[in-house]
Amino acid sequence: MALIVKKFGGSSVANAERVFNVANRIIDDYKKGNDVVVVVSAQGDTTDDLIEKAKEINPQGASKREMDMLLSAGEQMSIALLAMAIEKLGCPVISLLGWQAGFHTDSHHGIARIKNVNTERIKNEIAKRNIVIVAGFQGLNKYDDITTLGRGGSDTSAVAIAAAMKADLCQIYTDVDGVYSADPRKVSNAVKMDEIGYDEMLELATLGAQVLNNRSVEMAKKYNVELEVLSSLEYKPGTIVKETVKMEKTLIRGVAKDNNVACISIVALEDTPGIAFKIFNKLAQYKVNVDIILQSVGRDGTKDITFTVSQDQSQLAVDAIESLKGSLNYKNIKVDTSVTKVSIVGAGMESHPGVASKMFEALYDAAINIQMISTSEIKISVLIDSKYADKAVSVVHDAFLG
Amino acid sequence: MALIVKKFGGSSVANAERVFNVANRIIDDYKKGNDVVVVVSAQGDTTDDLIEKAKEINPQGASKREMDMLLSAGEQMSIALLAMAIEKLGCPVISLLGWQAGFHTDSHHGIARIKNVNTERIKNEIAKRNIVIVAGFQGLNKYDDITTLGRGGSDTSAVAIAAAMKADLCQIYTDVDGVYSADPRKVSNAVKMDEIGYDEMLELATLGAQVLNNRSVEMAKKYNVELEVLSSLEYKPGTIVKETVKMEKTLIRGVAKDNNVACISIVALEDTPGIAFKIFNKLAQYKVNVDIILQSVGRDGTKDITFTVSQDQSQLAVDAIESLKGSLNYKNIKVDTSVTKVSIVGAGMESHPGVASKMFEALYDAAINIQMISTSEIKISVLIDSKYADKAVSVVHDAFLG
Repeated sequence: MALIVKKFGGSSVANAERVFNVANRIIDDYKKGNDVVVVVSAQGDTTDDLIEKAKEINPQGASKREMDMLLSAGEQMSIALLAMAIEKLGCPVISLLGWQAGFHTDSHHGIARIKNVNTERIKNEIAKRNIVIVAGFQGLNKYDDITTLGRGGSDTSAVAIAAAMKADLCQIYTDVDGVYSADPRKVSNAVKMDEIGYDEMLELATLGAQVLNNRSVEMAKKYNVELEVLSSLEYKPGTIVKETVKMEKTLIRGVAKDNNVACISIVALEDTPGIAFKIFNKLAQYKVNVDIILQSVGRDGTKDITFTVSQDQSQLAVDAIESLKGSLNYKNIKVDTSVTKVSIVGAGMESHPGVASKMFEALYDAAINIQMISTSEIKISVLIDSKYADKAVSVVHDAFLG
Repeated sequence: MALIVKKFGGSSVANAERVFNVANRIIDDYKKGNDVVVVVSAQGDTTDDLIEKAKEINPQGASKREMDMLLSAGEQMSIALLAMAIEKLGCPVISLLGWQAGFHTDSHHGIARIKNVNTERIKNEIAKRNIVIVAGFQGLNKYDDITTLGRGGSDTSAVAIAAAMKADLCQIYTDVDGVYSADPRKVSNAVKMDEIGYDEMLELATLGAQVLNNRSVEMAKKYNVELEVLSSLEYKPGTIVKETVKMEKTLIRGVAKDNNVACISIVALEDTPGIAFKIFNKLAQYKVNVDIILQSVGRDGTKDITFTVSQDQSQLAVDAIESLKGSLNYKNIKVDTSVTKVSIVGAGMESHPGVASKMFEALYDAAINIQMISTSEIKISVLIDSKYADKAVSVVHDAFLG
């Protein structure tokens, strides 16, 4: 008897057949006597279809408040349908919207942060032995307006409930059966891991392994929530993500790529003291998450500052910089979205010199040009032309894990 | 400067073009300095599509609580899209879900009754000069669960806001340009009325004129809300519905038909005292709205009781009767959905004898058999085979209004 939080993504509930598949997995655990709370995303392409409808009304982009109103309807439909399937299979169940499940967030529509989860209603429903289905990705701000958590928000919703309820396990179901050393669809000799540490997973998540959202891993680490990444279609153990004090520090855990990168250059920027602070402070005010930063050596009293952001934030970043017009003198801003970030991650890296040079060598041998480099204690990332992305992952994987 | 409540049905906002058409009509009134609150239904076929999805999951019918969760997403999407269109046209606007707009209902999912509307949020938004878009058809019960108001619920939502806010006018936009003496698509010489009394409209609404929902007219009468029924596509005055103390009492206002009728017969019912009370009390407990009742003369110690309900309540009615098994002896229950109710309405009827016989004569001349008859002070209804419905409306209209 345990409390298990399960999260299913949109593809896992894309049609009636899959909804029943998910319902059966939930019921399996419930019938063993466990308490089960399920977080679910919008079905299949629902969110994209709704975005398309909004664009049809306003191609320049609707207000984020109204976008959240629109998009949150997607999860509302999926929780109701999943609850109906569980009802049909004879188990007691109730669906709850984000606000009904107690999700309070700040007011940054579209990228809201969870402030707290009041689990009273969930606990009451569990006490009645109901399976509880919660709409992921959404909450309510202090003005009683619906907010959404942004990309991968449903993972975060699941971990937040697991943390608030002190759940025994938080299972994240995806279309892969665990965390691999590289994308198994692209790299044939990629290896599935039985377990991985939070920090390593965090680097892989941030780097676009697309298995787990980075905010959810950060939250899992903070509240020490044990995660399992597993397949919604196959019945087999996945990869456990947890604190790794006793784990052997493998040199390189995995290779990841991230296509969702925009490289923004401020060209011929007049070089005055505090200029970098001014730019990145403004970007922070605009809630832009900056990843890699590169500053060129100055020339003729000007320099170039280049940084990367996710593609959906690139316009926001440009707006932020343009808002400084007047106090910032530069020639122009360039936005390049044809770049990909390829990274290697491993907690053993810090005690092994030569990892970086081995990676660069592999790329050089494959004639792939490196545009930017970024490193942390446990990862090395390079920015390259998108057209070489799969090749780069493959040659780097072979160099370390082949 | 007035406070105007406007209600637009699903067909009025079925696609982006129509959404903008509605947005422009709203803005016209807003720019004249009026405060505008808009109630909108789900777009086009959204509700039917969602019902279809639920049936795919559970053909026997999902729980009403989860159906309300599912269906209320339909209005959520339409209010967001309409708000986006108004934003795009440059006016300040905010969309509100039923619960955000203060709709508190009882807990009869699928057919909930409005208990009160707390208009604080709407008033605050109007004070900011926002156009307020409210999701029709939905509210919240005391358990914080979403409820829906049932068929035509958006009309009721609009009138409830108009009543609570003491609005100057409540405009109900439809795909016809007013209330006619008969369906203008079927009866070529049907006449549009400039105004009509609440009671007459109530009979017409109840009888399936399909212009206004009867609950909304009842509420408008109770709170003396002046309604206008008008076209969302054409710019011309519609029909005003209001108290009619000074109106000339026209003999016959209109002819209506209602296809949404199921005729239920309890055959060879053992005749014991209190049997009718027992049956109709149980139907009331099941929240079945019974319309016409016919009781046959007894024979062999048994009799037949026949009554009509709306088709969507026919299964519920059968369930209610079957729940009496044991204390009620009968041979079988028959359900006939191939019947239509045709009615004539007019406040002048009560002072003019011979109206009923004139109606029956018109039907007899057209060789249409009358199965059941029901009368009130201002209406006469007959139940006939559905295949003669249009013909019946036509000949009765000609007899009185031709």
